[in-house]
Amino acid sequence: MSESPPRGRATPRLIGVGVGPGDPELVTVRAVRVLREADLVLVPVLAAGQPEPGRAESVVRAYTGMAERVVFALSDRGGVTRRRAAAWEAAAARVERAFAAGAETVAFATIGDPNVYSTFTYLAQTVRDRVAEVRVETVPGITAMQDLAARSGTVLTEGTESLALVTLTAGVEPFRAALAAHDTVVAYKFGPVAGDAVAAAKDAGRLDDAVYGARLGLPDEDVRPAGELGGPVPYLATLLLPARRTTRGGKL
Amino acid sequence: MSESPPRGRATPRLIGVGVGPGDPELVTVRAVRVLREADLVLVPVLAAGQPEPGRAESVVRAYTGMAERVVFALSDRGGVTRRRAAAWEAAAARVERAFAAGAETVAFATIGDPNVYSTFTYLAQTVRDRVAEVRVETVPGITAMQDLAARSGTVLTEGTESLALVTLTAGVEPFRAALAAHDTVVAYKFGPVAGDAVAAAKDAGRLDDAVYGARLGLPDEDVRPAGELGGPVPYLATLLLPARRTTRGGKL
Repeated sequence: MSESPPRGRATPRLIGVGVGPGDPELVTVRAVRVLREADLVLVPVLAAGQPEPGRAESVVRAYTGMAERVVFALSDRGGVTRRRAAAWEAAAARVERAFAAGAETVAFATIGDPNVYSTFTYLAQTVRDRVAEVRVETVPGITAMQDLAARSGTVLTEGTESLALVTLTAGVEPFRAALAAHDTVVAYKFGPVAGDAVAAAKDAGRLDDAVYGARLGLPDEDVRPAGELGGPVPYLATLLLPARRTTRGGKL
Repeated sequence: MSESPPRGRATPRLIGVGVGPGDPELVTVRAVRVLREADLVLVPVLAAGQPEPGRAESVVRAYTGMAERVVFALSDRGGVTRRRAAAWEAAAARVERAFAAGAETVAFATIGDPNVYSTFTYLAQTVRDRVAEVRVETVPGITAMQDLAARSGTVLTEGTESLALVTLTAGVEPFRAALAAHDTVVAYKFGPVAGDAVAAAKDAGRLDDAVYGARLGLPDEDVRPAGELGGPVPYLATLLLPARRTTRGGKL
């Protein structure tokens, strides 16, 4: 299926660009440059015809008018569904067509960091299967974990503390184990098992300091103590349980 | 020791600004704005009169000519030394004098992220002890972990994988425990115990995929397989052991 580019052409590059959690100011200077210089910028959306922009799309549009939507399925519950695999294939085919039409650089904008629970990982692999000579690069981005720490005034790690990052799509047990073994624990994709996760934090005696965050940097941002949660929680919500610190700062 | 600001003045703000691992392009748009708007920008250096700029200082000077050095001790081995505590007090006193002289915003530039193993945590606490009404904020920054992942082409987490971040100033045992319990493990401040840490990675059967990084984004950057290490390793070096992935991407 892959075609070699014409001789003398630059190696085609696919660049995963982390655009941070949603606030357009939380992208790096490099991300802005790469988005502006790319021959094609792709942004993932849940549905091609959706009226509102996707979260990555909103950030990209703050810096360049050129952003083309590709449809990605959000959920990774239950592993790789046929629908998700079909979405990656369609996006990879779009990248392949762009290279065939002469594009040297295709950027794919991804919320957060392209190497942390990102759909870019799957897209890159699928493109590699189609375009053997492609060079894949990434530009790091601010993660939700870091943004929630900043917005809530919570130190993630200091001194010799450790940090565990888990996703609750793996169930609550890895989260419970992390609570037992680590100083600071961050859980992503907290929505579907919010009740169980809050119970696990409470069982560990760590609910009092826990911080909840969703829609970070968006107009309807929600950051508050996890103990105050009630009602449904969005899929992409984050739970942050900081290390227990009996003394602080200069008085450690 | 604290004096209230004159009535009618804005609340003094101390902002910890993450400037990323060293490459000036890896700062956020917000960091650039805050550094340019601040009344005073402080940068940590190891010695006041050192001829070469500090790592944070180099990044800051790419965006603003205004950066004043404060001396910080790097090592946190052996807990809080008298020298480190004195450094924080001197820096906090400088911040206090700036507020007293009318500054509304003081920015402190810190390598990486101000909430991840940052001296900013200690400075903020020391300033709070002196200036009761100070408002402390942070601007997140790209961490060495993320930069090393991007530069080495290593995915940090995908699917349901977990990640543990430890510092080897805590010794090698927490690192060994993390290797046993987590998919991806990142160890900071790897230099002082490099030999023991490499042995631990080898014992866990995970040395083959391990990536080593130091001086990321600097002219003498060193990124290579950890198995190829020999000789002394810088204090701030990072070791990244990615999850073992038998299948990849669209073929998960």
